[in-house]
Amino acid sequence: MGFKIIGREGRARAGVLKTAHGEVETPVYMPVATQASVKALSQEDLDSLGVKAILSNSYHLYLRPGTSVIKQAGGLHRFMKYEGMILTDSGGFQVLSQADLRTIDDFGVSFKSHIDGSAHRLTPEKVIAIQSELGSDCWTALDVCAPYPSDEAQTKLALERTMRWLDLSEKTFLQKKAEGSESLFFPILQGGFFAPLRLQAAEHMSKIQADGISLGGFSVGEPKALTWEILGKTTEVLPEQKPRYLMGVGTPEDLWDAVSLGIDMMDCVWPTRVARNGQVMTRVGRYNISNSFCRTNFEPLESSCSCFVCRRYSKAYLSHLHRSRELSAHRLISYHNIHLMLVLAREIRQSILDGNFAEKRREFFSRIKKDSKDVLALVS
Amino acid sequence: MGFKIIGREGRARAGVLKTAHGEVETPVYMPVATQASVKALSQEDLDSLGVKAILSNSYHLYLRPGTSVIKQAGGLHRFMKYEGMILTDSGGFQVLSQADLRTIDDFGVSFKSHIDGSAHRLTPEKVIAIQSELGSDCWTALDVCAPYPSDEAQTKLALERTMRWLDLSEKTFLQKKAEGSESLFFPILQGGFFAPLRLQAAEHMSKIQADGISLGGFSVGEPKALTWEILGKTTEVLPEQKPRYLMGVGTPEDLWDAVSLGIDMMDCVWPTRVARNGQVMTRVGRYNISNSFCRTNFEPLESSCSCFVCRRYSKAYLSHLHRSRELSAHRLISYHNIHLMLVLAREIRQSILDGNFAEKRREFFSRIKKDSKDVLALVS
Repeated sequence: MGFKIIGREGRARAGVLKTAHGEVETPVYMPVATQASVKALSQEDLDSLGVKAILSNSYHLYLRPGTSVIKQAGGLHRFMKYEGMILTDSGGFQVLSQADLRTIDDFGVSFKSHIDGSAHRLTPEKVIAIQSELGSDCWTALDVCAPYPSDEAQTKLALERTMRWLDLSEKTFLQKKAEGSESLFFPILQGGFFAPLRLQAAEHMSKIQADGISLGGFSVGEPKALTWEILGKTTEVLPEQKPRYLMGVGTPEDLWDAVSLGIDMMDCVWPTRVARNGQVMTRVGRYNISNSFCRTNFEPLESSCSCFVCRRYSKAYLSHLHRSRELSAHRLISYHNIHLMLVLAREIRQSILDGNFAEKRREFFSRIKKDSKDVLALVS
Repeated sequence: MGFKIIGREGRARAGVLKTAHGEVETPVYMPVATQASVKALSQEDLDSLGVKAILSNSYHLYLRPGTSVIKQAGGLHRFMKYEGMILTDSGGFQVLSQADLRTIDDFGVSFKSHIDGSAHRLTPEKVIAIQSELGSDCWTALDVCAPYPSDEAQTKLALERTMRWLDLSEKTFLQKKAEGSESLFFPILQGGFFAPLRLQAAEHMSKIQADGISLGGFSVGEPKALTWEILGKTTEVLPEQKPRYLMGVGTPEDLWDAVSLGIDMMDCVWPTRVARNGQVMTRVGRYNISNSFCRTNFEPLESSCSCFVCRRYSKAYLSHLHRSRELSAHRLISYHNIHLMLVLAREIRQSILDGNFAEKRREFFSRIKKDSKDVLALVS
């Protein structure tokens, strides 16, 4: 159990994370199974894609189907029949963005369910207990994510509460560990877009018995330049030997950029969310399948792609399915998009091991086209 | 090319239909790919299910993506990448049930598209030409399906128009055949629920160079007893050597009953439509996955089922997916339901060959439970 770095180039790292459910090669992109399902895909699809790690969400699973149902099933892996590594988000972000009538105090958050309006309370201790019942492999801690924009005082308040909660979470985590739990602890580092606050958070984190560090509070509406500026300053002061997980960030471009700043793990709903709107990701940029060019183009979504969708179906057919609102369009385009993310993550890892990450990254960005017409010309 | 009967028991028949895209063992249940997609499933799913024949719809494909797109793709098989037999419905039923502002005259039907309101006209000749461009294996003919209930005069008018159109369709079919088409002709026999009209239709059909006979105008809201009464009187006078295709009828019970009256082929959207509402079909009846019993039942949808869904997932998980409105619920339950239909059709065929169809049919009905509680107790 634990993390081993096996290659470096600049600040980029290639490693292996050992968990109770297998080894995960990093850098890794983790598809998001918010409600114990990567939207539109089945676990057979995850197997055939070679997905070794996914993210799921304590907040959603706690509300539905309920922690006790999953515990009865023998844990989340058995419930959803997925044997890879599962990291669970703490719910801090979700309570703030999705729940109704929330009130935060020093010891937790009270809110009403976005599903049925029922009243609930989450505390740092309870969130660890929930993750323990889910049996996920990596646990996060309840946090307060400051909205964007927030001023320094607001952000500081959110961070202070997050740090206080982290102390309580750590206590419960260590209890569970003492009781035999093999799950790893990946508490969330906040601090918004104020470097001094991020450094304060990192300083506090260095005293926590964490197996890895989750970087929260990014991708909340800020400009990309600010993301990388603050992320870079934060990873600089984090311990080298612990894996760093950047939460909720994950376009193909983000993968290369985040890894260049020392990130090892990422998750993002983006590839599957945009797929349901018909957006196709390729190594040279994106286009929408509803583009009229696709109606009579009988080439695959991306000519160089080896996924089963590209091996069998044409843009014309997928364009027809999407226009006709056929459900299979969602699955097929989601599969292709996730496939690309996994292929890119593997290539990034290999380039670090080969010592040509910087070169490959330049190459990748030099090929990206912003105009979907140019993308379509290249992939058809 | 053509149909061969290889076994009989009473009026039930087991046969083989040879088409340009493979041999189809009958009795057969054909899943419905209205818009060139069996809803929520992919063609990999059809392959793994062993689906040898599907139904698609001229009316829908003509409107979207348009016949010319499919012709450019090299035909419907290449467009959707399905190599089994495809039978296409004529659109007669769809124009009457879905299109706006339709006006029928002696030579065809004018209507506005249900998609974009554009004006169109279908004639018997044009419907054959459309199917020729689609390249489907079995073609039907434009017909007028009388709504239920209709009086004898109304039904007679609809039938007379259908017969007149059939003469025109046959002419175009024979032309296409002379030009080298290998597709089979399955014109539609109408006549509503008046036995003398059905006999008149059969008499007219006997003069048509048909490869098979489609039985239309059933399952339009009439009581089941009336379906079987009129169907039985109709099949009685049809030529023995031609395959009979009962259009749009297909619950598990219907399969056994229709075959007992000499039906060889059936299609129905029912198994996939109800799946999207959470309805699970089993050999002993149906239940809805949203039944509260399912929330904490960790057994498969049907314990005796060998489909991939039942081999991997539990009712509890599928119940969660359905309640959470996850798209994969639609695919997984649709797959299970179609799997059952195919298994039943194969068992029916085998029982005819073994000479115990009547016994197996009795057994099947004796096991059917109407109450979903009883069903759940049996399959869990």
